[in-house]
Amino acid sequence: MKKAVFCVVMLAAALTAGAQKISSPNGKLNLIFSIDKGGCPTYTLTYGDKTVVAPSHLGYQLKMDDPNKKTDFEWNTPVAASDEIVRKADLMTGFATTSVETSSFDETWSPVWGEESSIRNHYNELLVHLNQAKNDRSMDIRFRLFDDGLGFRYEFPDQKNLTYFTIKEEKSEFAMTGNHTAWWIAGDYDTQEYEWQTTRLSEIRENMKNAIAPNSSQTPAGPTTVQTSLQMKTDDGLYINLHEAACINYATMHLTYDETNNSFVSHLTPDAAGDKGHIQTPSTSPWRTVIVGEQATDILASRITLNLNEPCKLEDTSWIHPTKYVGVWWEMITGAGTWSYTDDLNSVQLGVTDYTKTKPNGKHGANTKHVKDYIDFAAENGFDAVLVEGWNEGWEDWFGHQKDYVFDFVTPYPDFDVKEISEYAKSKGVKMIMHHETSSSTTNYERHLEDAYDFMNKWGYTSVKSGYVGDIVPYGEHHYSQPLNNHYLYCIKKAADHKIMVNAHEATRPTGICRTYPNWIGNESARGTEYESFGGNPVNHTTILPFTRSIGGPMDYTPGIFVMDLGTWAEGNTSKVRSTLARQLALYVTLYSPLQMAADIIEHYQEKMDAFQFIKDVPCDWDKSLYLEAEPGQYIVTARKAKGADEWFIGCTAAECGHTSNINLDFLTPGKTYTATIYADAKGTAWDNNPEGYVITTKKVTSKSTLKKLVAGAGGGFAISIK
Amino acid sequence: MKKAVFCVVMLAAALTAGAQKISSPNGKLNLIFSIDKGGCPTYTLTYGDKTVVAPSHLGYQLKMDDPNKKTDFEWNTPVAASDEIVRKADLMTGFATTSVETSSFDETWSPVWGEESSIRNHYNELLVHLNQAKNDRSMDIRFRLFDDGLGFRYEFPDQKNLTYFTIKEEKSEFAMTGNHTAWWIAGDYDTQEYEWQTTRLSEIRENMKNAIAPNSSQTPAGPTTVQTSLQMKTDDGLYINLHEAACINYATMHLTYDETNNSFVSHLTPDAAGDKGHIQTPSTSPWRTVIVGEQATDILASRITLNLNEPCKLEDTSWIHPTKYVGVWWEMITGAGTWSYTDDLNSVQLGVTDYTKTKPNGKHGANTKHVKDYIDFAAENGFDAVLVEGWNEGWEDWFGHQKDYVFDFVTPYPDFDVKEISEYAKSKGVKMIMHHETSSSTTNYERHLEDAYDFMNKWGYTSVKSGYVGDIVPYGEHHYSQPLNNHYLYCIKKAADHKIMVNAHEATRPTGICRTYPNWIGNESARGTEYESFGGNPVNHTTILPFTRSIGGPMDYTPGIFVMDLGTWAEGNTSKVRSTLARQLALYVTLYSPLQMAADIIEHYQEKMDAFQFIKDVPCDWDKSLYLEAEPGQYIVTARKAKGADEWFIGCTAAECGHTSNINLDFLTPGKTYTATIYADAKGTAWDNNPEGYVITTKKVTSKSTLKKLVAGAGGGFAISIK
Repeated sequence: MKKAVFCVVMLAAALTAGAQKISSPNGKLNLIFSIDKGGCPTYTLTYGDKTVVAPSHLGYQLKMDDPNKKTDFEWNTPVAASDEIVRKADLMTGFATTSVETSSFDETWSPVWGEESSIRNHYNELLVHLNQAKNDRSMDIRFRLFDDGLGFRYEFPDQKNLTYFTIKEEKSEFAMTGNHTAWWIAGDYDTQEYEWQTTRLSEIRENMKNAIAPNSSQTPAGPTTVQTSLQMKTDDGLYINLHEAACINYATMHLTYDETNNSFVSHLTPDAAGDKGHIQTPSTSPWRTVIVGEQATDILASRITLNLNEPCKLEDTSWIHPTKYVGVWWEMITGAGTWSYTDDLNSVQLGVTDYTKTKPNGKHGANTKHVKDYIDFAAENGFDAVLVEGWNEGWEDWFGHQKDYVFDFVTPYPDFDVKEISEYAKSKGVKMIMHHETSSSTTNYERHLEDAYDFMNKWGYTSVKSGYVGDIVPYGEHHYSQPLNNHYLYCIKKAADHKIMVNAHEATRPTGICRTYPNWIGNESARGTEYESFGGNPVNHTTILPFTRSIGGPMDYTPGIFVMDLGTWAEGNTSKVRSTLARQLALYVTLYSPLQMAADIIEHYQEKMDAFQFIKDVPCDWDKSLYLEAEPGQYIVTARKAKGADEWFIGCTAAECGHTSNINLDFLTPGKTYTATIYADAKGTAWDNNPEGYVITTKKVTSKSTLKKLVAGAGGGFAISIK
Repeated sequence: MKKAVFCVVMLAAALTAGAQKISSPNGKLNLIFSIDKGGCPTYTLTYGDKTVVAPSHLGYQLKMDDPNKKTDFEWNTPVAASDEIVRKADLMTGFATTSVETSSFDETWSPVWGEESSIRNHYNELLVHLNQAKNDRSMDIRFRLFDDGLGFRYEFPDQKNLTYFTIKEEKSEFAMTGNHTAWWIAGDYDTQEYEWQTTRLSEIRENMKNAIAPNSSQTPAGPTTVQTSLQMKTDDGLYINLHEAACINYATMHLTYDETNNSFVSHLTPDAAGDKGHIQTPSTSPWRTVIVGEQATDILASRITLNLNEPCKLEDTSWIHPTKYVGVWWEMITGAGTWSYTDDLNSVQLGVTDYTKTKPNGKHGANTKHVKDYIDFAAENGFDAVLVEGWNEGWEDWFGHQKDYVFDFVTPYPDFDVKEISEYAKSKGVKMIMHHETSSSTTNYERHLEDAYDFMNKWGYTSVKSGYVGDIVPYGEHHYSQPLNNHYLYCIKKAADHKIMVNAHEATRPTGICRTYPNWIGNESARGTEYESFGGNPVNHTTILPFTRSIGGPMDYTPGIFVMDLGTWAEGNTSKVRSTLARQLALYVTLYSPLQMAADIIEHYQEKMDAFQFIKDVPCDWDKSLYLEAEPGQYIVTARKAKGADEWFIGCTAAECGHTSNINLDFLTPGKTYTATIYADAKGTAWDNNPEGYVITTKKVTSKSTLKKLVAGAGGGFAISIK
């Protein structure tokens, strides 16, 4: 309550000082900008009569090396910062508004691929020009208010007193108005693969320890620091989502919850030197986004993240294709096969180690014959491509050593015949997907990148799955720091030069940059299906992902598991997939991606070709998407229209309580009759009871039909094709 | 005294435990290896009846992440290492000798270029195989004892329990036997450009603060930590030099002086994460060298550093040439000209900034006309090449910002016509030397390296001067860490692929790797002539460099300054070169390098063509080198025979006390008469009195002649050509 009073006072003070106000196009969202008594930029966001973001400060703390510090060679003698340094480090107070500009914007644009073939970008804008007299510096803040939320960013004009600077911390505040329910994962500089927690804001600290599980690389960010996108729900029914857009040449943002002020404050990922960003003006920060909706489905329908990114910078995009694929992968993830070729080696020296003199372990997945089986399967079932992991030398000691020269990305194992496979795939009309696990040695990857992409071009690989497992080299760097974010984009641009599409695993969570570089067709950046083999994902996992991970862009979740008890075929694996088979089908609709894998081994599909038909039918590019029903952590029901075809696909994923839907098909073309094929959980099926039980039914439907009592069991779902 | 007693006891204990002993080929140096009571490898080095290195320990502390540490997400709660981790981190005690091997080696080899055309590599070797039972690990130590000193290194065989490890610190000890006089510079992870200090060992700490002056990048290593090569002199007349050889895939070593034990202990340069090295077995450490001589000249004549490096790995070396050059450089160093093209910009964006729309500052050195004047001068005077700095876009904001994309290495300023200059140089038979200042952004340099070298190949540049000024990007890295040392060698190898010679400034001090990769024709790695324009080098500087900096390999010192009062032509520069003109000539002989610059502006040479004749005559490749007289910090007199010609050149550099020589020419071919041309300080000339005064005399000489009373003034010298 104390906070609420404080907010009102703040607001009054701000308004007194000459506040600026804009409204969203539909008038529901309102933004007030002001300068507080200390000269700190301050904003407030309201939705109707509800406050979404209470008065919140904006600004930066800069890192300023004291010139005197350099002469401190008396070790262990701290040097106090001078008054001048303290003043220069402050990019937060002492500001005055010099001028403001307001404008409106409304355009409709077409993405190369996406959930919709046409996206409206409609906002009112407030650009505030600020001057900080005590340092003779200027800084602008640009606010864009859409019907579905707010984006704002900092802009640093070219100027004499702020040309190069180092960020100690960005201090963008998001003051909450209540003890909201939040769906969050622990802040971490090196992993995004934690389980989502569902707690009140006040419970973040006490749940943090449980929220952090061991990972191959991890650096927890703090006891109340969480990742974005952060989904919240207020007690009076508003849905609020905090994330960022266009994180380019900048560190990825976390949010630190300040319990005293019931407020989130930005917390950037540091680089190896502990700094949070090196900025050269003129420049802009990423956009900070606050998506707001009265319905949970409003969050899913928001296009703010894409709209705040720059239009496509690639002149020719004809080579970019949404892709459905199978791959030699799940067998290694489950432990039934290996990436490595031999068990003889505990230390590989590329170019020195002679694999032809080692004993094959007999479980190496990426062998020519096996790969050709996958090519056959892909060709027979209309898949675009085949991914093969573990094809190249180096997998015997690739992990956990921060090994610098860990892979060369061009030398296959003796049993993987690049030429034979490439020619065979080509003869079958199937594309091969390259795999570049970097073991997080980006130094090494960049040294080999040009040759690796040349190799792909030579052998006809048109896309690559890259991976960043383990601690980063350069030593001390973090997966989501400014240098690493620059690395990922460097690869994307280089790949575009080679007409290569990229699906980067373990890279920074996306922030909509795929609009600008649509060859960035995928990311992992969260717990994917692989965790079903490492003990399992929480049952509600896929009902949260679209509200959190997917806000920034598509995820290569790799659904499609048909055999849930992994121990039945992968010896020694005790994991059971926490999903029904029908839900596995539904995920192709509920988890949008232009890149969709049918992740299970092909033998499992061959046993259930009737259910597999849905995966064969479902496209991965869409004209239109409708979010029919949703509640984070409980259920999501999504309908999408195939791009360029009058076909609809519906998916439902449900958590522990299951879900029952009645779906009005009024989105179908009136007067036309379709055949709906419904893939549903068998009666009584749940993730922990007969999870592979499914029933397929068909019926004729029109735009006047309603599909009634569609039941998803616990951890279940349903999938529907309407043609 | 206590120490001395301790040493004797240790020695006795060691011998009791079964010590190993080898002698140098001439029997004067003796090495004793033993395991002390705690199982620590221990060595002692004696010269005749004098102890050079008292019993000293060898080994490592490893960094071991406690598996439990990963679960410490209670921030600020330190986790105590388990007993197991403490044990595993110990690669220093608990060793037993499993077997020893002794051998002898004697070969003579020819370097591609050098101080001698033929080098003898003659040593007795002791290889000790050690086992550490408590961790079931093995480690070998290989000692090579030459007549002029010791080299030893650690070797890690391929083994199960020591495959990958991280070095916390190497603990190689060098226990001294007295309070020696030492010539040292302050240990630092980012600069080698400090002034040499001459103190007793006991005085290191009290002199450290004065030993550290501000530098463009610096990270002092500790209050008693110094750099190698470290030159010492004992009170009983021995000269001892500590350095390293073949520092490959390893951090550069400093030495921390332990006052309690009168001992130096190795201190490696950390990487950005604070670690000192990532090792994959099988592997070897660099060699640690102890050069020993009764005369100071013995140190200069030692070839230990080269002999401990691997033979040349380049199959074709026909494209590697010793090079004498002039360049557009000194005018910028002195402030008379600029690297930058315009004064309009304080923030450059490569590819965006349009230089043709900026106003030239009128002082840009690298303009086509000016460069052609240098090409003319080089051609007329028999120089091989012309260096031009500041030719490429980006110099307006290149320094001090850790700017990532700071140069692209292929885009010239508008007034530098690459094509015209290349064609003109070719028509005159002169090579152009490329300049790649990286601003220490090695990430950026590696991204552009292939294109930059291709550009050089295209335009006929056969060598490059690279620079690493400022703090390193990747952030937090250090100039001499393992990743940076790997970067430098990566560039050398890539350059060799392009048949390019490299002269790397601000890179790690050399350790003889030029034997293996002779396209590494030079380094700076110490205060060069440029400091004469920044206030001046100490008068004794060039009498110390050959004992310290040059032990590892050639230095691009850039001598040949003819006008000592810089303010007479470079407006506002108050520096005076602390040398006579005659000494500037002598440096071409006393400071060996296959790459020698005539560093002054050509107008200054044109005024004194008689003195310039020596620079024209002196070669930079030799059949033989004789170190006639030397005392560190006082004087050096060197005679060298030109490669493939019966011509000798003699140089003397002297410090504050000057030096008078009588030189017996018995090294000349008997029965042959030569003309000696002597370039000497004019009477009364000293660095601070008429420094440009010189006298040139000629006389006929034979192998029976003695040149008498050759006088070098304070900070003076003489240079002699004998043809």
